[in-house]
Amino acid sequence: MISFVTTNKGKFVEAKKIAEKFSIEIRWVNLEYPEIQGESLEEVAYFSIKFLSKEIDDMFFIEDSGLFINSLKGFPGIYSSYVFKTIGNEGILKLMEGVKDRSAYFKAVVAFYDRSEIHTFIGITEGRIANEIRGDSGFGFDPIFEYNGRTFAEMGEGKNEVSHRRKALEKFFSWLTKNF
Amino acid sequence: MISFVTTNKGKFVEAKKIAEKFSIEIRWVNLEYPEIQGESLEEVAYFSIKFLSKEIDDMFFIEDSGLFINSLKGFPGIYSSYVFKTIGNEGILKLMEGVKDRSAYFKAVVAFYDRSEIHTFIGITEGRIANEIRGDSGFGFDPIFEYNGRTFAEMGEGKNEVSHRRKALEKFFSWLTKNF
Repeated sequence: MISFVTTNKGKFVEAKKIAEKFSIEIRWVNLEYPEIQGESLEEVAYFSIKFLSKEIDDMFFIEDSGLFINSLKGFPGIYSSYVFKTIGNEGILKLMEGVKDRSAYFKAVVAFYDRSEIHTFIGITEGRIANEIRGDSGFGFDPIFEYNGRTFAEMGEGKNEVSHRRKALEKFFSWLTKNF
Repeated sequence: MISFVTTNKGKFVEAKKIAEKFSIEIRWVNLEYPEIQGESLEEVAYFSIKFLSKEIDDMFFIEDSGLFINSLKGFPGIYSSYVFKTIGNEGILKLMEGVKDRSAYFKAVVAFYDRSEIHTFIGITEGRIANEIRGDSGFGFDPIFEYNGRTFAEMGEGKNEVSHRRKALEKFFSWLTKNF
Protein backbone atom coordinates (compact mmCIF):
# COMPACT_ATOMS: atom_id res chain seq x y z
CA MET A 1 0.00 0.00 0.00
CA ILE A 2 1.14 3.54 -0.73
CA SER A 3 1.07 6.25 1.92
CA PHE A 4 0.08 9.89 1.39
CA VAL A 5 1.91 12.03 3.94
CA THR A 6 -0.12 15.14 4.73
CA THR A 7 -1.55 16.87 7.78
CA ASN A 8 -4.51 18.00 5.64
CA LYS A 9 -7.38 15.52 5.87
CA GLY A 10 -9.25 17.22 3.03
CA LYS A 11 -6.35 16.61 0.67
CA PHE A 12 -6.22 12.96 1.64
CA VAL A 13 -9.96 12.45 1.07
CA GLU A 14 -9.73 14.11 -2.36
CA ALA A 15 -6.72 11.99 -3.34
CA LYS A 16 -8.38 8.79 -2.11
CA LYS A 17 -11.40 9.39 -4.38
CA ILE A 18 -9.19 9.94 -7.41
CA ALA A 19 -7.04 6.90 -6.55
CA GLU A 20 -10.12 4.67 -6.41
CA LYS A 21 -10.85 5.38 -10.08
CA PHE A 22 -7.48 3.81 -10.81
CA SER A 23 -8.20 0.91 -8.40
CA ILE A 24 -5.40 2.15 -6.17
CA GLU A 25 -5.68 2.14 -2.40
CA ILE A 26 -3.84 4.79 -0.42
CA ARG A 27 -3.24 5.18 3.29
CA TRP A 28 -3.20 8.44 5.25
CA VAL A 29 -0.05 9.27 7.22
CA ASN A 30 -0.76 12.38 9.29
CA LEU A 31 2.77 13.62 9.83
CA GLU A 32 4.36 17.06 9.70
CA TYR A 33 7.65 17.43 7.87
CA PRO A 34 10.08 20.28 7.17
CA GLU A 35 9.92 22.20 3.91
CA ILE A 36 12.91 24.24 2.81
CA GLN A 37 12.94 27.73 1.38
CA GLY A 38 13.72 26.57 -2.13
CA GLU A 39 13.56 27.97 -5.63
CA SER A 40 10.73 25.72 -6.79
CA LEU A 41 8.03 23.36 -5.53
CA GLU A 42 10.11 20.48 -6.91
CA GLU A 43 13.20 21.46 -4.90
CA VAL A 44 11.12 21.78 -1.74
CA ALA A 45 9.54 18.37 -2.35
CA TYR A 46 12.88 16.63 -2.95
CA PHE A 47 14.20 17.85 0.35
CA SER A 48 11.07 16.80 2.25
CA ILE A 49 11.15 13.34 0.66
CA LYS A 50 14.76 12.86 1.72
CA PHE A 51 13.80 13.79 5.26
CA LEU A 52 10.72 11.54 5.31
CA SER A 53 12.53 8.57 3.77
CA LYS A 54 14.23 8.11 7.15
CA GLU A 55 10.93 8.30 9.06
CA ILE A 56 8.74 6.07 6.87
CA ASP A 57 9.51 2.54 5.75
CA ASP A 58 7.19 2.00 2.78
CA MET A 59 6.50 3.84 -0.47
CA PHE A 60 4.91 7.24 0.03
CA PHE A 61 4.09 10.51 -1.69
CA ILE A 62 3.60 14.13 -0.74
CA GLU A 63 1.87 16.99 -2.51
CA ASP A 64 2.50 20.73 -2.47
CA SER A 65 1.05 23.54 -4.50
CA GLY A 66 1.16 27.28 -4.98
CA LEU A 67 -0.27 30.25 -6.84
CA PHE A 68 2.13 31.90 -9.30
CA ILE A 69 1.32 35.40 -10.58
CA ASN A 70 3.25 36.25 -13.72
CA SER A 71 3.45 40.03 -13.29
CA LEU A 72 4.72 39.54 -9.71
CA LYS A 73 7.61 37.29 -10.80
CA GLY A 74 5.82 34.21 -9.57
CA PHE A 75 4.87 35.63 -6.16
CA PRO A 76 3.50 34.15 -3.86
CA GLY A 77 4.68 30.84 -5.39
CA ILE A 78 6.06 28.31 -2.97
CA TYR A 79 5.27 30.64 -0.06
CA SER A 80 1.57 30.80 -0.89
CA SER A 81 0.39 29.47 2.43
CA TYR A 82 2.49 31.97 4.43
CA VAL A 83 1.43 34.86 2.19
CA PHE A 84 -2.22 33.85 2.52
CA LYS A 85 -1.92 33.84 6.31
CA THR A 86 -0.35 37.31 6.38
CA ILE A 87 -1.50 39.65 3.60
CA GLY A 88 -4.26 37.34 2.31
CA ASN A 89 -6.51 37.82 -0.71
CA GLU A 90 -6.85 41.52 0.05
CA GLY A 91 -3.07 41.93 -0.09
CA ILE A 92 -2.82 40.21 -3.47
CA LEU A 93 -5.63 42.37 -4.90
CA LYS A 94 -3.84 45.47 -3.62
CA LEU A 95 -0.59 44.39 -5.28
CA MET A 96 -2.50 43.87 -8.53
CA GLU A 97 -4.16 47.31 -8.55
CA GLY A 98 -3.52 48.94 -11.91
CA VAL A 99 -1.59 45.90 -13.20
CA LYS A 100 -2.59 44.96 -16.76
CA ASP A 101 -1.25 41.41 -16.94
CA ARG A 102 -3.37 39.54 -14.40
CA SER A 103 -2.45 36.06 -15.68
CA ALA A 104 -1.60 33.49 -13.03
CA TYR A 105 -1.52 29.76 -12.52
CA PHE A 106 -1.92 27.24 -9.78
CA LYS A 107 0.72 24.55 -9.80
CA ALA A 108 0.76 21.28 -7.86
CA VAL A 109 3.63 18.87 -7.48
CA VAL A 110 3.18 15.28 -6.38
CA ALA A 111 6.47 13.69 -5.35
CA PHE A 112 6.58 9.92 -4.94
CA TYR A 113 9.38 7.90 -3.38
CA ASP A 114 9.53 4.25 -4.46
CA ARG A 115 12.39 3.54 -2.00
CA SER A 116 15.01 3.98 -4.68
CA GLU A 117 14.02 7.04 -6.73
CA ILE A 118 11.91 10.18 -6.46
CA HIS A 119 9.32 10.70 -9.21
CA THR A 120 7.49 14.02 -9.61
CA PHE A 121 4.20 14.76 -11.34
CA ILE A 122 3.11 18.29 -12.18
CA GLY A 123 -0.39 19.72 -12.57
CA ILE A 124 -0.98 23.27 -13.77
CA THR A 125 -4.23 25.20 -14.14
CA GLU A 126 -4.01 28.58 -15.81
CA GLY A 127 -6.28 31.50 -15.05
CA ARG A 128 -6.18 35.12 -13.93
CA ILE A 129 -6.42 37.16 -10.76
CA ALA A 130 -10.00 38.42 -10.41
CA ASN A 131 -10.71 42.10 -9.82
CA GLU A 132 -12.43 41.33 -6.52
CA ILE A 133 -13.01 38.52 -4.03
CA ARG A 134 -15.88 36.27 -5.18
CA GLY A 135 -17.36 32.96 -3.99
CA ASP A 136 -17.61 31.01 -0.75
CA SER A 137 -16.29 27.52 -1.44
CA GLY A 138 -12.72 26.27 -1.45
CA PHE A 139 -9.94 27.84 0.61
CA GLY A 140 -6.86 30.02 0.35
CA PHE A 141 -6.61 32.02 -2.86
CA ASP A 142 -9.64 30.29 -4.46
CA PRO A 143 -11.85 33.43 -4.21
CA ILE A 144 -9.45 35.51 -6.35
CA PHE A 145 -8.37 32.87 -8.90
CA GLU A 146 -10.56 33.11 -11.98
CA TYR A 147 -10.87 30.17 -14.34
CA ASN A 148 -13.10 30.61 -17.42
CA GLY A 149 -14.87 33.59 -15.87
CA ARG A 150 -15.62 32.08 -12.46
CA THR A 151 -13.38 32.01 -9.43
CA PHE A 152 -12.43 28.64 -7.96
CA ALA A 153 -14.50 29.65 -4.92
CA GLU A 154 -17.57 30.09 -7.17
CA MET A 155 -17.16 26.66 -8.76
CA GLY A 156 -17.91 24.44 -5.75
CA GLU A 157 -17.17 20.80 -6.53
CA GLY A 158 -16.57 21.82 -10.16
CA LYS A 159 -13.17 23.11 -9.11
CA ASN A 160 -12.02 19.57 -8.38
CA GLU A 161 -12.62 18.63 -12.01
CA VAL A 162 -10.10 21.14 -13.34
CA SER A 163 -7.77 21.67 -10.41
CA HIS A 164 -3.99 21.58 -10.61
CA ARG A 165 -3.97 19.04 -7.76
CA ARG A 166 -6.31 16.68 -9.61
CA LYS A 167 -4.13 16.87 -12.72
CA ALA A 168 -0.97 16.04 -10.80
CA LEU A 169 -2.65 13.20 -8.89
CA GLU A 170 -4.16 11.70 -12.05
CA LYS A 171 -0.79 11.73 -13.79
CA PHE A 172 0.72 10.03 -10.76
CA PHE A 173 -1.93 7.33 -10.36
CA SER A 174 -2.00 6.65 -14.08
CA TRP A 175 1.78 6.21 -14.04
CA LEU A 176 1.50 3.96 -10.97
CA THR A 177 -0.88 1.53 -12.69
CA LYS A 178 1.69 1.08 -15.45
CA ASN A 179 4.77 0.84 -13.24
CA PHE A 180 3.75 -1.00 -10.06
CA MET B 1 38.77 29.81 15.90
CA ILE B 2 35.06 30.34 15.28
CA SER B 3 33.56 30.08 11.79
CA PHE B 4 30.85 32.32 10.36
CA VAL B 5 28.91 30.35 7.74
CA THR B 6 27.50 32.70 5.11
CA THR B 7 27.58 33.10 1.35
CA ASN B 8 27.45 36.88 1.85
CA LYS B 9 30.94 38.36 1.96
CA GLY B 10 29.61 41.76 3.07
CA LYS B 11 28.08 40.19 6.17
CA PHE B 12 31.34 38.48 7.00
CA VAL B 13 33.38 41.68 6.67
CA GLU B 14 30.91 43.55 8.89
CA ALA B 15 31.00 40.80 11.53
CA LYS B 16 34.80 40.60 11.43
CA LYS B 17 35.07 44.32 12.24
CA ILE B 18 32.73 44.01 15.20
CA ALA B 19 34.47 40.85 16.41
CA GLU B 20 37.83 42.64 16.44
CA LYS B 21 36.55 45.12 19.03
CA PHE B 22 36.07 42.13 21.30
CA SER B 23 39.50 40.70 20.35
CA ILE B 24 37.78 37.77 18.69
CA GLU B 25 38.99 36.31 15.42
CA ILE B 26 36.47 34.76 13.06
CA ARG B 27 36.89 32.74 9.89
CA TRP B 28 34.68 32.87 6.80
CA VAL B 29 33.07 29.63 5.65
CA ASN B 30 31.39 30.31 2.31
CA LEU B 31 28.83 27.53 2.28
CA GLU B 32 25.17 27.35 1.29
CA TYR B 33 22.80 25.54 3.60
CA PRO B 34 19.07 24.75 3.60
CA GLU B 35 16.63 26.96 5.45
CA ILE B 36 13.20 25.62 6.33
CA GLN B 37 9.86 27.36 6.00
CA GLY B 38 9.49 27.89 9.72
CA GLU B 39 7.40 30.03 12.02
CA SER B 40 10.29 32.19 13.20
CA LEU B 41 13.89 33.12 12.45
CA GLU B 42 14.91 31.07 15.48
CA GLU B 43 13.20 27.92 14.21
CA VAL B 44 14.81 28.35 10.79
CA ALA B 45 18.24 28.83 12.38
CA TYR B 46 17.93 25.75 14.61
CA PHE B 47 17.22 23.58 11.63
CA SER B 48 20.11 25.00 9.61
CA ILE B 49 22.50 24.52 12.53
CA LYS B 50 21.51 20.88 12.86
CA PHE B 51 22.18 20.40 9.17
CA LEU B 52 25.53 22.24 9.27
CA SER B 53 26.72 20.45 12.41
CA LYS B 54 27.25 17.37 10.22
CA GLU B 55 29.19 19.35 7.60
CA ILE B 56 31.46 21.42 9.83
CA ASP B 57 33.74 20.15 12.58
CA ASP B 58 34.46 23.23 14.69
CA MET B 59 32.36 25.84 16.44
CA PHE B 60 30.38 28.04 14.06
CA PHE B 61 27.56 30.55 13.83
CA ILE B 62 25.04 31.72 11.26
CA GLU B 63 22.97 34.88 11.00
CA ASP B 64 19.58 35.53 9.47
CA SER B 65 17.35 38.55 9.51
CA GLY B 66 14.04 39.87 8.28
CA LEU B 67 11.70 42.86 8.14
CA PHE B 68 8.52 42.49 10.16
CA ILE B 69 5.63 44.86 9.46
CA ASN B 70 3.12 44.92 12.30
CA SER B 71 -0.01 45.79 10.30
CA LEU B 72 0.81 42.97 7.83
CA LYS B 73 0.99 40.32 10.58
CA GLY B 74 4.75 40.27 10.39
CA PHE B 75 4.99 40.01 6.60
CA PRO B 76 7.50 39.63 4.92
CA GLY B 77 9.28 38.26 8.03
CA ILE B 78 11.42 35.20 7.50
CA TYR B 79 10.68 35.33 3.77
CA SER B 80 12.07 38.85 3.36
CA SER B 81 14.66 37.90 0.79
CA TYR B 82 12.15 36.08 -1.44
CA VAL B 83 9.61 38.90 -1.11
CA PHE B 84 12.27 41.46 -1.96
CA LYS B 85 13.21 39.53 -5.10
CA THR B 86 9.60 39.29 -6.27
CA ILE B 87 7.41 42.26 -5.27
CA GLY B 88 10.28 44.39 -3.93
CA ASN B 89 10.08 47.76 -2.20
CA GLU B 90 7.37 48.91 -4.60
CA GLY B 91 5.20 45.95 -3.60
CA ILE B 92 5.57 46.69 0.11
CA LEU B 93 4.69 50.37 -0.43
CA LYS B 94 1.62 49.32 -2.40
CA LEU B 95 0.52 47.00 0.41
CA MET B 96 0.94 49.88 2.87
CA GLU B 97 -1.14 52.38 0.89
CA GLY B 98 -3.77 53.87 3.19
CA VAL B 99 -2.52 51.86 6.18
CA LYS B 100 -2.26 53.96 9.36
CA ASP B 101 0.03 51.78 11.45
CA ARG B 102 3.32 51.81 9.55
CA SER B 103 5.42 50.49 12.44
CA ALA B 104 7.91 47.78 11.56
CA TYR B 105 11.12 46.28 12.84
CA PHE B 106 14.18 44.57 11.51
CA LYS B 107 15.17 41.51 13.49
CA ALA B 108 18.42 39.56 13.29
CA VAL B 109 19.17 36.22 14.86
CA VAL B 110 22.70 34.95 15.41
CA ALA B 111 22.76 31.23 16.17
CA PHE B 112 25.96 29.74 17.55
CA TYR B 113 26.76 26.06 17.90
CA ASP B 114 29.42 25.23 20.50
CA ARG B 115 29.36 21.49 19.54
CA SER B 116 26.98 20.67 22.34
CA GLU B 117 24.33 23.39 22.44
CA ILE B 118 22.78 26.04 20.21
CA HIS B 119 22.82 29.60 21.59
CA THR B 120 20.80 32.37 19.94
CA PHE B 121 21.24 36.14 20.15
CA ILE B 122 18.58 38.57 18.99
CA GLY B 123 18.94 42.11 17.67
CA ILE B 124 15.92 44.29 16.94
CA THR B 125 15.75 47.79 15.47
CA GLU B 126 12.36 49.46 15.44
CA GLY B 127 11.22 51.94 12.85
CA ARG B 128 8.47 52.53 10.33
CA ILE B 129 7.77 51.97 6.66
CA ALA B 130 8.51 55.20 4.79
CA ASN B 131 5.92 56.72 2.45
CA GLU B 132 8.32 56.43 -0.48
CA ILE B 133 11.64 54.90 -1.52
CA ARG B 134 14.55 57.07 -0.33
CA GLY B 135 18.35 56.69 -0.31
CA ASP B 136 21.01 54.82 -2.25
CA SER B 137 23.11 52.91 0.27
CA GLY B 138 22.44 49.53 1.81
CA PHE B 139 20.41 46.80 0.18
CA GLY B 140 17.04 45.06 0.30
CA PHE B 141 14.37 46.95 2.20
CA ASP B 142 16.79 49.62 3.48
CA PRO B 143 15.28 52.36 1.23
CA ILE B 144 11.81 52.00 2.80
CA PHE B 145 12.78 51.38 6.44
CA GLU B 146 12.77 54.66 8.34
CA TYR B 147 14.69 55.03 11.58
CA ASN B 148 14.51 58.40 13.35
CA GLY B 149 13.30 60.14 10.20
CA ARG B 150 15.88 58.76 7.77
CA THR B 151 15.73 55.51 5.85
CA PHE B 152 18.50 52.97 6.39
CA ALA B 153 19.49 53.67 2.77
CA GLU B 154 19.96 57.37 3.61
CA MET B 155 22.18 56.63 6.61
CA GLY B 156 25.22 55.17 4.82
CA GLU B 157 27.70 53.74 7.35
CA GLY B 158 25.54 55.21 10.11
CA LYS B 159 23.14 52.33 9.61
CA ASN B 160 25.76 49.89 10.90
CA GLU B 161 25.81 51.72 14.23
CA VAL B 162 22.16 51.02 14.95
CA SER B 163 21.42 47.95 12.89
CA HIS B 164 19.65 44.85 14.17
CA ARG B 165 22.55 42.74 12.89
CA ARG B 166 25.10 44.75 14.86
CA LYS B 167 23.03 44.41 18.03
CA ALA B 168 22.77 40.64 17.66
CA LEU B 169 26.48 40.27 16.84
CA GLU B 170 27.55 42.45 19.77
CA LYS B 171 25.43 40.43 22.18
CA PHE B 172 27.00 37.27 20.79
CA PHE B 173 30.62 38.43 20.91
CA SER B 174 30.17 39.93 24.35
CA TRP B 175 28.77 36.60 25.58
CA LEU B 176 31.65 34.75 23.89
CA THR B 177 34.30 36.73 25.77
CA LYS B 178 32.70 35.65 29.03
CA ASN B 179 32.08 32.02 28.12
CA PHE B 180 34.99 30.87 25.96
